[in-house]
Parts: sequence; C-alpha cells; structure tokens
Amino acid sequence: MSEQTSPRSRRSRRASGKAGRSAEPGQNLHLRVPYITRKIPTYDLLGEESLEKIEATADRILAEIGIELRDDAEAMRLYKQAGAQVTELRADAWNIRFEPGMLREILKTAPARFTQHARNPANNVDIGGDAMVFAPAYGSPFVMDMDNGRRYGTIQDFQNLIKLGQSSPWLHHSGGTICEPTDIAVNKRHLDMVYSHMRYSDRAFLGSITAPERAADSIEMCRILFGAEFVDQNCVIMGNFNTTSPLVLDGVTTGGIRTYAEAGQGSIHLPFLLGGAVSPLTMAGAVAQCLAESMASSALTQLVRPGAPAILAGFLSSMSLRSGSPTFGTPEPALGSLVMGQLARRLNMPLRCAGNFSTSKAPDGQAMQQAMMSMMSAVQGGANYILHSAGFVDGLLSMSYEKFVMDTDMCGALHSYLAGIEVNEDTLGFEALAQNGPGEHLFGTDHTLRHYETAYWDSGLNDDQTHETWSEQGSADYAQRANQRWKDILNTYEAPPMDDATDEALRDFIDRKKASMPDAWY
Amino acid sequence: MSEQTSPRSRRSRRASGKAGRSAEPGQNLHLRVPYITRKIPTYDLLGEESLEKIEATADRILAEIGIELRDDAEAMRLYKQAGAQVTELRADAWNIRFEPGMLREILKTAPARFTQHARNPANNVDIGGDAMVFAPAYGSPFVMDMDNGRRYGTIQDFQNLIKLGQSSPWLHHSGGTICEPTDIAVNKRHLDMVYSHMRYSDRAFLGSITAPERAADSIEMCRILFGAEFVDQNCVIMGNFNTTSPLVLDGVTTGGIRTYAEAGQGSIHLPFLLGGAVSPLTMAGAVAQCLAESMASSALTQLVRPGAPAILAGFLSSMSLRSGSPTFGTPEPALGSLVMGQLARRLNMPLRCAGNFSTSKAPDGQAMQQAMMSMMSAVQGGANYILHSAGFVDGLLSMSYEKFVMDTDMCGALHSYLAGIEVNEDTLGFEALAQNGPGEHLFGTDHTLRHYETAYWDSGLNDDQTHETWSEQGSADYAQRANQRWKDILNTYEAPPMDDATDEALRDFIDRKKASMPDAWY
Repeated sequence: MSEQTSPRSRRSRRASGKAGRSAEPGQNLHLRVPYITRKIPTYDLLGEESLEKIEATADRILAEIGIELRDDAEAMRLYKQAGAQVTELRADAWNIRFEPGMLREILKTAPARFTQHARNPANNVDIGGDAMVFAPAYGSPFVMDMDNGRRYGTIQDFQNLIKLGQSSPWLHHSGGTICEPTDIAVNKRHLDMVYSHMRYSDRAFLGSITAPERAADSIEMCRILFGAEFVDQNCVIMGNFNTTSPLVLDGVTTGGIRTYAEAGQGSIHLPFLLGGAVSPLTMAGAVAQCLAESMASSALTQLVRPGAPAILAGFLSSMSLRSGSPTFGTPEPALGSLVMGQLARRLNMPLRCAGNFSTSKAPDGQAMQQAMMSMMSAVQGGANYILHSAGFVDGLLSMSYEKFVMDTDMCGALHSYLAGIEVNEDTLGFEALAQNGPGEHLFGTDHTLRHYETAYWDSGLNDDQTHETWSEQGSADYAQRANQRWKDILNTYEAPPMDDATDEALRDFIDRKKASMPDAWY
Repeated sequence: MSEQTSPRSRRSRRASGKAGRSAEPGQNLHLRVPYITRKIPTYDLLGEESLEKIEATADRILAEIGIELRDDAEAMRLYKQAGAQVTELRADAWNIRFEPGMLREILKTAPARFTQHARNPANNVDIGGDAMVFAPAYGSPFVMDMDNGRRYGTIQDFQNLIKLGQSSPWLHHSGGTICEPTDIAVNKRHLDMVYSHMRYSDRAFLGSITAPERAADSIEMCRILFGAEFVDQNCVIMGNFNTTSPLVLDGVTTGGIRTYAEAGQGSIHLPFLLGGAVSPLTMAGAVAQCLAESMASSALTQLVRPGAPAILAGFLSSMSLRSGSPTFGTPEPALGSLVMGQLARRLNMPLRCAGNFSTSKAPDGQAMQQAMMSMMSAVQGGANYILHSAGFVDGLLSMSYEKFVMDTDMCGALHSYLAGIEVNEDTLGFEALAQNGPGEHLFGTDHTLRHYETAYWDSGLNDDQTHETWSEQGSADYAQRANQRWKDILNTYEAPPMDDATDEALRDFIDRKKASMPDAWY
C-alpha cells in the first residue's frame, strides 16, 4: 500500500507540523488494512418472528404480484426455464412470478463471500461474511467545492475524486461513477471512466452498467489489464445495477447483469426505494420489497453462471412531508439498513447497504450528522460493500470535494470502531491502576506507555486543540480545513505505477472504440 | 406540554412558511413524549465471558487497590459499618476496600427505575429500565455563538440556554449547570441557577453539588416549590457527582451525596475518565474502573437511606496523542459506552452515559459528526439519563447556542430511531404494492395516504430542498440556520406560569441567603 498512502504521509498539517513527522496526525498505521474485518457483533434490530414476517411478505410479493421484466427475452427465458411463472403483458414485457422459496434455492450457488481483485494484489478486497469494504459515492451529475460552488462534473473532476480516494487509507475500493463526466459523450464516457480508475487508482473498481455493450467494454479493458484467463477465473470488476422500483427489471439492466455474470464478474442488485413514491413508507414494507426485488435481480446471475458473485443490496430513503423530495441520512432508513443486514445474513449473501448519505447542500453540520447516522447503520448492520462512503451531499445529486475528505476521515474512525474492544489481562489494565494507586495520574505508567500510540483513533482532520491555539491559527472550521486538505492531497498525489505496454494497450482500445462510433448524448 | 412547545409551534420557518401552519417543519406531534420509552433492543457489544472479566476486574480494584476517601469521616464510618476494610492513610484520609460482591449487595436497595417529578406533572420523567431522558450539556465555563464568539458564561446565558431547552420538545429535562454563570459569586450562584431552572422551565432539573450546604439550599428551594412532604416522599431534584479519578472520593462530593440521599433525592455517580491520564487507555480497563468507582460512590446513598435513587454513570473520553488533551466523540469511548450499558443492566441500575460530545470549536461538521457518534452509543447502549444531549462543544469548555439547537433537532430524530420498526400486516404494506402493481408510483395509494404524516421524522432544521431553492433563499448553511433559529426561539419564548406566592417565596429565600454571607469567588 506504499503508493496509495504516500500522499498522506508526505502531507504535513500546519497545525501540528512542529511535532515532526513521527507525530503527524491521521497516520494510524496499526489500523490500515486492504479491507476491514469486523470484530464487533452486528446490531440485530428485529427478532425471529418479525424477520419471518418480512421474508414471508417478500415471498408473497414475488408469488402474487410478481416482477415486470421489460425488453429482455433472454432473461425471460432464463427465469421461465428455472420454473418461474411467466405471463406476457405485451410484446417485450412479461410478468414473472416465483413460488415461495424458489429464488432462495437459486441463490444457494451465489458465493457468501468472494474476492474482488485489484491490479495491486495488496489491495484485493473480500466481500461477504465479516469483511467490510468502503467505496466512494456513486452517480452524481454535479460536483461542488467551496471555491467554485456547484457545477456539472467533468472528467477532470472524475479523476480528481479518484485521486482523493486512492490517497486515503480509509477507503478500500475506487468505486465507479464517482461523478458523471458530463463533458464526454454518453456513449464513450465509460471508456474514460474505466481507464481513469485503472490509471489513477490501483484498487478494485466498478464498471459501466448503462448499456450491455458498455459493460462488455469495461470487462474487455479488464482483460487487457489483468489478462483474459485471469478475468475468466476471478472477479476483477463489478457492475452496480438498479432495479426499476417498484418491481420492474428493465432490459438494459438485465442485459448488463447477464454480461457481468457470463464473464464471471460481480454484480450488485440495488432497489433504490424512496418510501411513499416507489415503496411503502413503512420500513417493514420497504425492506420486504427490497429483499424481493434484490433477490429476483440477483437470481438472474446464477441462472446465467452459477457461482457468479452477486451482492444483495438496499438503498432505503425517506421523503420530505412537504415537497415529496427524497431525504437521506434520516433515522427510519438507518433502522431499515440494520434489518437488511439481518436479512442478507439469513440468505447467506454479501450486502451493500447505506453509506455517508446527506441532503445537505454544504459540507456542514447537517451533512456530517446525517452521514454519521446513515454510515453507522451500515457498519453496525454488517454491510459488506459500502458504496457512498465518501462525498455524498445534495441527495446524491452532487459530490462534494470537502465532504469527501471529511467522510474518509470518518471512515478511518470507523476502522477503530469496527475493531471493537479487546478484553484480556493486558487491556483490563489492573496493573495500570495498581502501579501508582488512587489519586495518581497514569501518564507515566508502563501500561500507558505501551498502549498510547494505538489505543485511540487519531483523526487527521478534526481539531482537538485548545480554543486559544485554534483561534491563534485562524479559527478554521471543519469545512475550511477540508477545503485546504483536498487541495494538499491533489498537489502531492502521485499515480501508482503502470507498465507502459498495458497503458498503451488500454489507450489503443479506447481510441479504436471511440473512433468506431459518433458521439451520442443519451 | 402546551407551554413548552408553544414557542416552536408559533415559530414559522421562512423556507416553507408558505406551506402554512399545518405543514410547519419539525412538529412531529406523534413523537412527543415526556420521556422516551426505548422500543429498539440494546446494542450488546460484549459477550458474557468478557463482561464477567470486566466485573471481576472492578471487584479486584475495589478489593486490592481500594478507594481513597478524603475529608468525610461520616462517609468513612458508613462504609466501615457496612463491612468495608478501612485503613487510615493520614488525618482525614482513608483507604477503603470492599470484598468482592459487597457493593453489589448494598446496591440491591437502589431502585432500578424511579420517577423524577417536575413542577409540571406532565413533564415527570422516568429514569431506568427502557426509559430514556435527554438533558442539555452541563458544566461549561464558556458560551459561544456565531455573532459574539466565545466568552465566559453569565446568568443571562444560563437563562437563555434554559429557555432554548424548555422550548424544544426533544429534550425532557432542564439539566443543571447549563453553563457557569461566572458573573455571580461562586457561593451564591447556585441560588440563581436553581431559581432559573424553576422559573424558566417546568421540567425536572439538577441541583448544586459544589458544597454540601449548597446542595441543601437546592433541596430547600424544592421544598418551597413542591412542598416539604412531597419532597420527602418523591425525587424532585438530583445532584451530579464526579468521583476524583483515579479511585478517589473527596469529602465535598461525598458530603453532597449524603445530603441528597438523606433527603431521598437522586444522585448521579460519575467517573470522568480521561484515558491515559486518570484511567487505563484501553477501553476494557476504563469501563472496569468506571464500574468500580461508580459502584463505590453510588453505594454511599444506600448506606445513608436505602432506596434513595442513584444513577450509575460513565463519562469515557480519549486523549490526543500529540497534546495529551482530551478528545470527545471518538470511536473507542463510543464502544465503551455500549459496554457501560451492559454493565448497568447486569447491576439493575439506571445509567447516565455519553451525550452529544465534541471537541470542535465551531458548530460545524466535526461537531455534528462527533456528536452523532457519541450520542448513538448512548441511545443504542440503553443509557437512561443522557446529560450533555445539547450544546456541547470545545471539549465541554463551551456551550454553543447554535449547536444547542442542532443537537435538539438531532434528539428529535432519535425519538423516531428509538421507536424502532413495527412489523405487522399494515406496516408490511403488501396492499400498497398490490394496489397499483409493478412500475406504478405509490404516492396516491391508501397506504401512503394513511401513513405519510407519521412515517418519517420531519426535521425542523435540516434543509431538504433542491439546490436551486436553497440557493435562491440565500444558501444558508446549517450553522447559519441554527444561528437564526435560536434567536427566533428566544424572541418568542414565554415562561411557563408560576403562581406569584411561590415565586415570591423562592425570591425571598434567595435574598435572605445572599444577605447572610459575603461574596466568595471559590
């Protein structure tokens, strides 16, 4: 991990630069891992009876209402062949119903845990079980920073955000559509996006899902990077697929899912459930629908290629009473995410859920309060792949440069949280108290000296100084410090090495693809 | 609760004032309660074996190291009479050791749950079991707001902060030293503090602990307000007592504890454990020490008056590696708070723990991220009395007017969080999906219309509008909105009614007390 962490280790924070390199804030070397292994128990909100009712409702939705599949006759044939009841609604649209238990049976071949490979093998991540992976936010058309405000994202922003992610030891995955590079034609931008992840990060990443042929391009580029045989035998890329809630799978999505599954690559099956709009407002109903939709979508992968990696997912959001607009980082979806964790474990599948959500339009207290409430539900619920771990503001319409670095610092704190509390003779510390006895400080005890460097998370962005010192140094608030921080990171960023032949082959592939078609903006 | 909520209901928020009274943000009438009844399970971090090790370590600390008691021969006699092993260290200082299990036996008479009465009986709070009470932060010498920055607190600030608390439906208790009124002599300020709680709030509150005679004054004022007989039979006031960690109880504290207990009033027994300074840095050791100190302190109440209300407590904090200064809202103490919840339940005592902690010097993203991490541990850990629920910044050195209203809004969100997820035929919402079927929005379904007003927490301070609307309205960030909010609340605040005779009797008591002694500033 030497490359990815070098920008951080070289950075010096003015506030405490005088303390010297050995005491630079935010290092926390003892907490650095390619992915987290959760050492705290999950927070299990509901009891057996309630979970069974939710599962029974999901089964009933699938058996009695069914899923509408559009524009993908091949997917229809696969579901039908597996035993689903298919009714033609119109040309290229079918109602698909599943007997209770059928999808669970199909999903038994999906791996409970798998490895997604990175081009730097030290950054391979495990997804499933007690493994936990943080990835940046995904899909915003806008970006914002405190200097230039909100504007459409460009490929420059896309690359900047990848660099910020790569530079943080507290993310484990480069994500996917870290923002929309709106300055590049829609039918070509996936090539630049995939290339940017490959070139500016050496972590695992997500590929295109906007059309099956773009999914295929993404995988083809992986064959150049990893070798075709390696790609056939290993998961090196994943696609993040949204159902069309309520209860619809469209052909662009299912075509993409089939493309990834055929290649043995991973896929995420995400219902984006805005309560009251596309799902019941009551959280019990929302999670039942979420389970139903995600199981139906995930099952397609196993019909295409049994054993292909698939991730159950949930994106639960609430609604403003006044405007009907979605709200994020609110308490009810946080509870729902905990339940999704329980449901995924009962299904023995990896889960993507929640993240650092917010509706705030600024990197302010609202943003971080909402982010923390949402993110805590992801980590306590035992989610395995946590997309939207950094940068999410404005209800996912914008990526914030400042919030990105705030969130990555918070992700670092969660590394310590997820390490839990060790209880043994040493950590119980009886000798620490006995050494000097009542009324005496413990600063100099053997126990303190032995533990003080690793006992506590050391934030690289929070200010823990006295008010006097903080004030003398300009009274910069969290947003101002974050603004300086992302600039410092970009200024010192160095791309991880890539051999020239591979780089050239990738560029050549992109050039040929781009030359093969005119720009299209849809 | 009509008085305390009137300032809020009359307030109109510019952003959506046009929506009219019926849709005013932040009302959430369905969530308003005098105190919360937790409907979610506690988050139990450690297993049986680890908890037993922690309890055994606490017992060992008490039996082998002991507590040092200073300057209170009467407390020494009480402990000795109960069977503790007392060794004189010097005149007026004793080492007190307790056989394993002895304190647990003594604490069996402490109530697992009790009611603290408020002068408005609708605001009585239960403390213990699944009841949960939010109270403002406590003890800051400074206050700050965005207009005037940081300065020493005055009695005007003290009263303003009580008014802000009283005006929020999301706090349940008026707290105690909401800030230090440094413009009043130390030996007299408790009189104005207690009077301010009585006059400007009609909720329960905390009394003075800085000297036994000031504790007695606080209780005497309650006798005027509630009647002497009522006070003898009911808990109407509590004192918040800090141990002198590590492992010391000083006579001012134990004298105060005895004063409250003799009067049948409540007391909180708080070790303030800064890891590495006054406790082991490792969280297992910190909670063991916390349990030991809080049990030893609590037990004194039962020796004075069996059945007197006593609250186990923990204030766990971490330390900056660089400066040695305390840090708050960090991940390790959050885990420790969850364990304190487990330990308190095993002891069958109410718990005070955590709160909206932060080291930030501004009402910014750091403040709210730290607050949320800390506060979530309090509510998930099942703490019963959560002091520091509003206003805490600057490592408790300052109360922030802006963060106060941010925190109270967050406390509101936690009301919804703590209500959990109901799972029944209605909330499972099968009919909501069946009514229109796949691909159709649920906006108009019967289920949505039936639930939309109560399904989601409606924040009164967050901004969930579109970026365009937010921008047109001046792009106010969370801190700026909070700044306007507290001014609006103070402008529309109306004191709850108090009959003139009571008011006069209280003022007369204060006048006589003040006239009886010269000002002292210690």
